[in-house]
Amino acid sequence: MLSYPQPLQQVIEELERLPGIGPKTAQRLALFLLSRPPQMAEDLSRALTNLHAGVQACAECFNYAAGRLCPICLDPARTRQVLCVVETASDLMALERAGEYRGVYHVLGGALSPVAGRGPEDLRIAELLARVAGEGVQEVILATSPTVEGDATAEYVRRRLREEHPELRVSRIALGLPVGADLDYADQVTLARALRGRTPMSD
Amino acid sequence: MLSYPQPLQQVIEELERLPGIGPKTAQRLALFLLSRPPQMAEDLSRALTNLHAGVQACAECFNYAAGRLCPICLDPARTRQVLCVVETASDLMALERAGEYRGVYHVLGGALSPVAGRGPEDLRIAELLARVAGEGVQEVILATSPTVEGDATAEYVRRRLREEHPELRVSRIALGLPVGADLDYADQVTLARALRGRTPMSD
Repeated sequence: MLSYPQPLQQVIEELERLPGIGPKTAQRLALFLLSRPPQMAEDLSRALTNLHAGVQACAECFNYAAGRLCPICLDPARTRQVLCVVETASDLMALERAGEYRGVYHVLGGALSPVAGRGPEDLRIAELLARVAGEGVQEVILATSPTVEGDATAEYVRRRLREEHPELRVSRIALGLPVGADLDYADQVTLARALRGRTPMSD
Repeated sequence: MLSYPQPLQQVIEELERLPGIGPKTAQRLALFLLSRPPQMAEDLSRALTNLHAGVQACAECFNYAAGRLCPICLDPARTRQVLCVVETASDLMALERAGEYRGVYHVLGGALSPVAGRGPEDLRIAELLARVAGEGVQEVILATSPTVEGDATAEYVRRRLREEHPELRVSRIALGLPVGADLDYADQVTLARALRGRTPMSD
């Protein structure tokens, strides 16, 4: 079978290695880039070259950082007394977009998963315990995902924190109905959680 | 709002310029690349750098080529007497995958489109007429897409060929039911075309 010229084939094959990009999409993207002035492919190429060198993990919280510390850990206006534990830096970004939280973070680097063979030693739990011991942390908010793995991770971290820091306040982000949701369409588990997590109303 | 470190943001923005890649997908792809060893981003980067320099248009048929001529035009086993006219090099690839055709091609570079402001002078029609005049071409197969624009392009090219080369055989690829299709679900236009293009059966 006839194939594309080698340099084009190469771009297609590299794009196919990305998640969610199949052979058809990879071909479409490569041909699109080829149909545009070279500048576009070069810009993307240059950005990719700088990616790993220019981005590192924050030495404090393991968020993405351009230098040693991330913008949040560098921000003197944020309180160090509250620490929010998330699975990934993307989750951190999602919480930041909400604009509600004024403390600092700790990125675990995933959730416990026997299926994926990810145990406590694969997450940054030791680093979390060290941070809590060193800094004046008063509350840890566990904001792992409300999934089986995220719940198990939150429960595991809670126990480890309890053992080493019995005085620490540990909380879990609220699970309940998303704002704007139709109660009629909510699943049973979410409804059960929303009922269990009900909060008193003041007048 | 907090954003990603500049080098990461840069990759996300460049990926967002690709067709069908929205902000969420661009972010997912960039974070995926960041989570992998640098080799992967570097391989893609290098492939992109080589893309335009390594791929050119075949001097004969305007297919993608690694050198002056594409593999098809270089192939001495292919007959020069039949010329198949397609809109794009991707269409050429699709026909090649069928493995049926043994002639050569001519890539127009698109279809006539008043909406997109693409007239005859924007397509490689003059080049086609010159090829037909020069080489011993006996038949031209018009394999533009069975769309309004593709049909109009085929009709326009047919007329131009007729004017300059009245002796030339000009044909259009068959329009009809796709193999495996359910007649019950076929649209009216396709059915009408399939009836009009019926072929005699031999026993």
